[in-house]
Amino acid sequence: MEEIIVNAGGCLSRIFVGQHREDIARMIPGKGVVIITDDNVYSVYGKEFPGFPVLRIKPGEGSKQLKTVELLAAGLLEHNIDRSGFLLGIGGGVVCDITGFLASVFMRGISFGFVSTSLLSQVDASTGGKNGVNLGEIKNLIGIFRQPEFVVCDTEMLKTLPEDEYFSGLAELIKTGIIGDPSIIESLEKDHQKVRNRDPELLSDLVGRAVKYKASVVTADERESGLRRVLNFGHTFGHAIELHKGIKHGFAVAAGMELSLRWSRELEYIDNDTCERILNLFSLYNLRFDWHMSPDDMRKLISHDKKKSGGDIYFVFVKGTGKPFVKLLPVSELIDFYSRITRK
Amino acid sequence: MEEIIVNAGGCLSRIFVGQHREDIARMIPGKGVVIITDDNVYSVYGKEFPGFPVLRIKPGEGSKQLKTVELLAAGLLEHNIDRSGFLLGIGGGVVCDITGFLASVFMRGISFGFVSTSLLSQVDASTGGKNGVNLGEIKNLIGIFRQPEFVVCDTEMLKTLPEDEYFSGLAELIKTGIIGDPSIIESLEKDHQKVRNRDPELLSDLVGRAVKYKASVVTADERESGLRRVLNFGHTFGHAIELHKGIKHGFAVAAGMELSLRWSRELEYIDNDTCERILNLFSLYNLRFDWHMSPDDMRKLISHDKKKSGGDIYFVFVKGTGKPFVKLLPVSELIDFYSRITRK
Repeated sequence: MEEIIVNAGGCLSRIFVGQHREDIARMIPGKGVVIITDDNVYSVYGKEFPGFPVLRIKPGEGSKQLKTVELLAAGLLEHNIDRSGFLLGIGGGVVCDITGFLASVFMRGISFGFVSTSLLSQVDASTGGKNGVNLGEIKNLIGIFRQPEFVVCDTEMLKTLPEDEYFSGLAELIKTGIIGDPSIIESLEKDHQKVRNRDPELLSDLVGRAVKYKASVVTADERESGLRRVLNFGHTFGHAIELHKGIKHGFAVAAGMELSLRWSRELEYIDNDTCERILNLFSLYNLRFDWHMSPDDMRKLISHDKKKSGGDIYFVFVKGTGKPFVKLLPVSELIDFYSRITRK
Repeated sequence: MEEIIVNAGGCLSRIFVGQHREDIARMIPGKGVVIITDDNVYSVYGKEFPGFPVLRIKPGEGSKQLKTVELLAAGLLEHNIDRSGFLLGIGGGVVCDITGFLASVFMRGISFGFVSTSLLSQVDASTGGKNGVNLGEIKNLIGIFRQPEFVVCDTEMLKTLPEDEYFSGLAELIKTGIIGDPSIIESLEKDHQKVRNRDPELLSDLVGRAVKYKASVVTADERESGLRRVLNFGHTFGHAIELHKGIKHGFAVAAGMELSLRWSRELEYIDNDTCERILNLFSLYNLRFDWHMSPDDMRKLISHDKKKSGGDIYFVFVKGTGKPFVKLLPVSELIDFYSRITRK
């Protein structure tokens, strides 16, 4: 059981890793609480929820729309939630993103906390204060920065996660290893079997390291004006692949990281061994698949990516594990590289 | 031409009163700007707008919904607005509320400014950083606090305002006189004919005084945790009357202020002369009308008002002009008073 503090935008957010979820009742107010979750999480853990009203959304990215926010806001009114209310999001990234946004805009902002139930949200989404919903195909176009009061990452809950969701989360864990804490890479290589068996103790250790790295980046740069951009490693190509192939986020990010690594190798930022080592890790955790799409489709989808500034994109390369760096590049350069690599 | 600084939430917002609107072009970036306005404002002033893309909404409260925010966000994408973009809202309270909210949540926040074209928004809505949209009947349920970079209040533009909108704005001006700056009351009594003729110089003086008072309150309490509540003077009953009668905001607030003044007199916080003096001012500016509705309807609508905390409401009384104070009261006490006064 470990506590990590995120200090961003003048607000403290406490992340508990390995915490027994039974302790959650002590962290929330005694009244005025509404729980937001999805049908899947509810069917597995609903019986253990603290005794407050529950609003359920449909699982999956399709729920991340303003329409859902509107329906949930109406639900909060029905339960007489006012400015002193508290929202507890119990779920993965989608539930946390919607809960955080809803809490940020309901009556101009009420308090909220998360119980993060997926590996993806434990290592990434629930730390950092980003929230939001999609607009059509554009992910997280509508949202704000606001820190939850707490995030509980109970790694025992990962046991019940569907296989593909678990592996998808491992991709973000590998990302953190590549850009931030190389010891994560070593553990994932060495303790391969334990990771596959979802050993809660090992996972608490790994999630803790990932959260600590992310917390340090977010504390330094809440609003993604500089340093925080390194967290987008693998996400530029990854988002486009995710949209085009309709696959889980982590798998697409793994493909995006593969492209970034290969480009870093082509530009001699990293040597062949480093590149191959990571690609082997992707193979070890079933994260490689056929991500091919036409350069033209890639260009269209990247041009819509909200992280671009004018016609240019902040693209994240690596100079070795733990050494990411960002370059502002025209979209055309990305597509040139992508065309080259897909022809090979 | 006067500049007033609002300092809230760590952000400075500059309010220009009496500024020639021709100067706006100097305040906005040279590129990446989109103008948000409504059809009415566009038909009168569209030709004078700076040369940037314009997104138009339908005039009126009906546009204040998440659906409009979604449509406008899609419009921003079409015009390739990214995180470096700037939104210029040109219009009254509805345009400013939507523009401020859209700018606050688009890509997690881009910069924005207002040209405030109605008296209501010049004296009240555009200063203070509140923004948002309605949910069904509940006003501003979805929104956040965020300051615009600037607000331009050009009182010459008030010449083209429809009669009822102008008088509606005068009600908020009177409110500021009652709770904050009694010299406004004196001017409105003394220069009655000039006010009716919409004399831009006198209006600049009056709007300037109202903005200064509001800026001082907002600077002290951006998030309405205490002091700022006095700005809700007349709004508790007023919001309910506005909803029930479907009339313009200022007229409803005038009715709400009449009820607050009468209650303040009943409780001997103010003497009869002070009460009658203000009620005469309402008559002078055609702000009195039949606001009667059943106590039961009143109770239902007030119970939905988002400013309540639990079953209680922060209600604003006055002890004389410039001396507002707030009491936390059960809804039932408000309804008891309302029943008494409507029986008389």
